[in-house]
Amino acid sequence: MKKIINDPETVVQDALRGMQAAHPDLLSVRYDPAVITRADAPVRGKVAIISGGGSGHEPLHGGFVGRGMLDAACPGAVFTSPTPDQVAAAVEATDGGAGALLLVKNYTGDVMNFEMAGELAESEVRSVVIDDDVAVQDSLYTAGRRGVGGTVLVEKIVGAAAERGADLAACEALANRVNASVRSMGLALTSCTVPHVGTPSFELAEDEMEIGIGIHGEPGRQRVPVGSAAEMVAALLDPVVADLPFAEGDRVLLFTNGMGGTPLIELYLAHGIAEAYLAERGITVERRLVGPYITSLEMQGMSLTLLKLDDELAGLWDAPVHTPALRWGV
Amino acid sequence: MKKIINDPETVVQDALRGMQAAHPDLLSVRYDPAVITRADAPVRGKVAIISGGGSGHEPLHGGFVGRGMLDAACPGAVFTSPTPDQVAAAVEATDGGAGALLLVKNYTGDVMNFEMAGELAESEVRSVVIDDDVAVQDSLYTAGRRGVGGTVLVEKIVGAAAERGADLAACEALANRVNASVRSMGLALTSCTVPHVGTPSFELAEDEMEIGIGIHGEPGRQRVPVGSAAEMVAALLDPVVADLPFAEGDRVLLFTNGMGGTPLIELYLAHGIAEAYLAERGITVERRLVGPYITSLEMQGMSLTLLKLDDELAGLWDAPVHTPALRWGV
Repeated sequence: MKKIINDPETVVQDALRGMQAAHPDLLSVRYDPAVITRADAPVRGKVAIISGGGSGHEPLHGGFVGRGMLDAACPGAVFTSPTPDQVAAAVEATDGGAGALLLVKNYTGDVMNFEMAGELAESEVRSVVIDDDVAVQDSLYTAGRRGVGGTVLVEKIVGAAAERGADLAACEALANRVNASVRSMGLALTSCTVPHVGTPSFELAEDEMEIGIGIHGEPGRQRVPVGSAAEMVAALLDPVVADLPFAEGDRVLLFTNGMGGTPLIELYLAHGIAEAYLAERGITVERRLVGPYITSLEMQGMSLTLLKLDDELAGLWDAPVHTPALRWGV
Repeated sequence: MKKIINDPETVVQDALRGMQAAHPDLLSVRYDPAVITRADAPVRGKVAIISGGGSGHEPLHGGFVGRGMLDAACPGAVFTSPTPDQVAAAVEATDGGAGALLLVKNYTGDVMNFEMAGELAESEVRSVVIDDDVAVQDSLYTAGRRGVGGTVLVEKIVGAAAERGADLAACEALANRVNASVRSMGLALTSCTVPHVGTPSFELAEDEMEIGIGIHGEPGRQRVPVGSAAEMVAALLDPVVADLPFAEGDRVLLFTNGMGGTPLIELYLAHGIAEAYLAERGITVERRLVGPYITSLEMQGMSLTLLKLDDELAGLWDAPVHTPALRWGV
């Protein structure tokens, strides 16, 4: 195992120290339990938008904490759900008197622990479960569909609404609406190694890729020989487009995401193919995001996410955001 | 070779199509010869800041084209110098009547081809060679020191000055001053594969890392067993600090750069250690940049760059920038 770490048991704490050092103006990190909040939390009168999950998917979620996106993130151990007391501490630290919305990726442990935290909280807490991965119905750690790239878009759009003063019910409804309008699928060219495990999460042959991979290396739909970038894009977009479905005349946001170990030159190459694929089908790409935003450690691969846009969602996407990983308009 | 590509021979062109699709508001891509310019080029009365080099180091340089940074970038084939006609086309496309400054990483082919382009140009052209890598004196493709992470900082700071209206002589002097104040060194945990070569650029044993690696996989100072993150940071910062030297009381920008395949969680972890290392020596980190900004395809590893700051350089660093990879203040 080749990693830039000191001790597999302290990777998350050590990385949090670096995040705090790197972004003193944006973030405030608490270590026990581990919670990353906006530096100016709590924001009086504002709904707190909170997410979290296992570490190893950076910049998700800690890199999305800041004005216009998340009020707090709860980083679990690598590929491990955060504990209820982490989530409860995040709710307490960001309580501005307007309640909290928990954005939860659909993994059984996450759903359970966020739910327990909501029950513990003294303030009003609601949660929305994100399940945008069309690859498989049930999975290794999940009943129903997994939450993947759509999470980034939900966090940005709902974060913008909360920043503008939307109340808890409106934020909850918006999160459900975005989740209902977004679909994703990913593929892996290589595996990844969880530090405290020390061996690869799965094995792929030298000429093989996994279509429909989960962000923790959960099995997808099939293993096939590595094809061209055009074949890869079609293998992801065919099921994504068919699922919602996305149709001619639709306006979309296209999110081309890297799994962590894939170079940016390959992501841009895939993005160009995906844009051409959608143009051929009369689907208009109006917004884009390209880069490694929801990753699986050093895994090579990508995921493609489509969100059906209307003027409201496009406007909330464009709204100012000031976080370590997404920043514009400020 | 597992890559998201269609054809090893068209990787750069195909990726440029994706960049153009992803950033229609920021960039204008010309394909023959390949040049990426600001969408609003040429900017009347402004010194054009132009860089370029082999592809495979994304987001460098194309990801730094935009307001407040580069006017144009010339992407060569992967790990191959751009041709003189690419650079000449960039000079012509961005000619606002105030001359052009070429920022050239110190690799023999780059220096030669940018020089030839300067001689071809009808407008006034100067160039500054960047050579911040303290690892080795001469290298596989270089006489003297290599240009690495410091390039990102030179491009940002000189780009800000040009945007504010600095003339060609002032931009040239500033680029030389930043280059004289910046030092870097990198390490690799794994190799990388150039698409049109198809085999890894070098081999590293399962327990080995290369200290002082070049961004094209050029040999560094030594191969040693993979150590802790603290040992890695010291192996890079000891020679960087000793070289300028950086001393107690200095104000610095610390740039923790990923080589492409290293997850962000490891970069943050290393960044935290580097901040503590510098604090112990009385060196004050006033600005930070953490992420994969000058990469070597899918190589795992990192580099650390230190820039000695004063109020002028800090102010130019903070100035608004609007590019695909760096964006703030707008």
